[in-house]
Amino acid sequence: MKEISHLMGYRQSVKVVDATLRDGGLVNDFYFTDEFVKELYNTNIKAGVDYMEMGYKADKAMFDESKFGKWKFCKDEDIREIVGDNNTSLKLAVMADVGRCNYKEDIIPKAESPIDLIRVATYLNTIPAAVDMIEDAAGKGYEVTCNIMAISNAQEGDLRTALDILGQSPVNVFYIVDSFGALYPEQLARLADVYLEFAAKYGKKVGMHAHNNQQLAFANTIEAVGDGVDWLDGTYSAMGRGAGNCAMELLLGFLKNPKYNVYPAIQFIEKYMVPLKEQGVVWGYDLQYLMTGLLNQHPRSAIAFTKDNRKDYAEFYKEVVAQD
Amino acid sequence: MKEISHLMGYRQSVKVVDATLRDGGLVNDFYFTDEFVKELYNTNIKAGVDYMEMGYKADKAMFDESKFGKWKFCKDEDIREIVGDNNTSLKLAVMADVGRCNYKEDIIPKAESPIDLIRVATYLNTIPAAVDMIEDAAGKGYEVTCNIMAISNAQEGDLRTALDILGQSPVNVFYIVDSFGALYPEQLARLADVYLEFAAKYGKKVGMHAHNNQQLAFANTIEAVGDGVDWLDGTYSAMGRGAGNCAMELLLGFLKNPKYNVYPAIQFIEKYMVPLKEQGVVWGYDLQYLMTGLLNQHPRSAIAFTKDNRKDYAEFYKEVVAQD
Repeated sequence: MKEISHLMGYRQSVKVVDATLRDGGLVNDFYFTDEFVKELYNTNIKAGVDYMEMGYKADKAMFDESKFGKWKFCKDEDIREIVGDNNTSLKLAVMADVGRCNYKEDIIPKAESPIDLIRVATYLNTIPAAVDMIEDAAGKGYEVTCNIMAISNAQEGDLRTALDILGQSPVNVFYIVDSFGALYPEQLARLADVYLEFAAKYGKKVGMHAHNNQQLAFANTIEAVGDGVDWLDGTYSAMGRGAGNCAMELLLGFLKNPKYNVYPAIQFIEKYMVPLKEQGVVWGYDLQYLMTGLLNQHPRSAIAFTKDNRKDYAEFYKEVVAQD
Repeated sequence: MKEISHLMGYRQSVKVVDATLRDGGLVNDFYFTDEFVKELYNTNIKAGVDYMEMGYKADKAMFDESKFGKWKFCKDEDIREIVGDNNTSLKLAVMADVGRCNYKEDIIPKAESPIDLIRVATYLNTIPAAVDMIEDAAGKGYEVTCNIMAISNAQEGDLRTALDILGQSPVNVFYIVDSFGALYPEQLARLADVYLEFAAKYGKKVGMHAHNNQQLAFANTIEAVGDGVDWLDGTYSAMGRGAGNCAMELLLGFLKNPKYNVYPAIQFIEKYMVPLKEQGVVWGYDLQYLMTGLLNQHPRSAIAFTKDNRKDYAEFYKEVVAQD
């Protein structure tokens, strides 16, 4: 069944997306130094990463610019300050959330922007709004992916309807997003089949964005690539909301395409990610995330538990079971 | 292919083995308090765990008793002090290493011992010695498993020969042991097929003992159970040598047999495992273990890196690649 999983060969069509600034930014309010961002950019180039997500295009009317680092807003000029004209093989992405992005104004034509890819993030119930954003971005000349979030508690019928609508849009990639870190590899394999069915029907690709609540982010990502999923998200040191994501260093070590190189990742982690943790930025697998993952719940209660420095895991378990 | 993995049902024949004292003892020289061991024992009973491994039966002529906690030696009287006559559903196990156990003397007849199961640990090149130990233990009335270590760099032909020899012994279970944390789930599925072929031929069961070097210990364990492997090792908070093991709390959360219960595990972790970490006992996933796992090497260099409090991961990567 698993093609890449002969484990010796590789598939040219696989793409690696670094989501460190975007998903990682959720745990430090996007306050990354310019040095960090520049070195991350250089690391991605050396490591052979295909896309680097710079952050969100958040609506400045909804979010106070003084309360977040600049990567929540990803102004084109801020990106240019890091990458210049980006004459490299690394492409740049930003995420645009349905309902939280003034995309008509804040996303300018691709010809004038250093950005290559717009990642539209949506829930199942806002697919028509997502399609409007996809059409806007594609019309402006961008590559476009659509990340359908929180699908671990979606009905398969709804998911099929959404993929059928999205298939008719100009989106390039459908992303499987395990927002709650609730999926086991076998469930993921079944979901991937559904996504791949619509991808084949409409000539799209499929992507995977995993969370590590049950220490399965990497396992689910390699399950996905074995099933035929081509776009793989990772973050350095697995930095990301709650339990974090699929670790880029694990992913680069696994992939066999010789263009990928794990050594720059290790250098970057030693020099930039370990200090970030030491400074007190908190993310990664812990019992409270296991619990919300196991119960297929949004991690917000686990994130609050973490923020409050609580250690009464057993009490928390009773709380989340009561909410279930 | 995956039977249990309908994820709703379960297989009665699945057994969970708690290896916290034994594999965890490798990182604190087996210095667990009696209170810890008693509470672990009570937790295993409440959680529905099937076997609790108390530690090693190490040869006192080879290892200085003053330099280790008592669970390196697992004297029957020390076990009795914790469990009395153990009139519970929880069975007790000890590990006996080939070449490091005076089994003829230190393992007494089962009728006189609180121990139920002898876990014989061997490398591929010491199978005849392992068979002698298996025959000794079975002859004394014990259940016996055989853990074939470090098989991630074994030749399949040698492995088949070993399983064919072991199949003719009175051993009850062949264990797959990913000592280096080097296996990906797909490789594990293939290995499990080989073990299950010989298990079917000789009427044995198959077990799985995973390490977390690439954050795949849990993923590999659920892959194994889906493939037909029945005996599953876990440790609380994944405590174990190097990168640690499959976390008991993840495993109990996954298994659907209603006799398993994750809540006592969470209580135990909060009260006993978190303090152990806070006291400075070190184990668990880190970059140095990823590297030895990726390179399919023994973790000894990564363990030394950890002990020396080194943080120069990139330098270490160059060292292990040079050793490769």
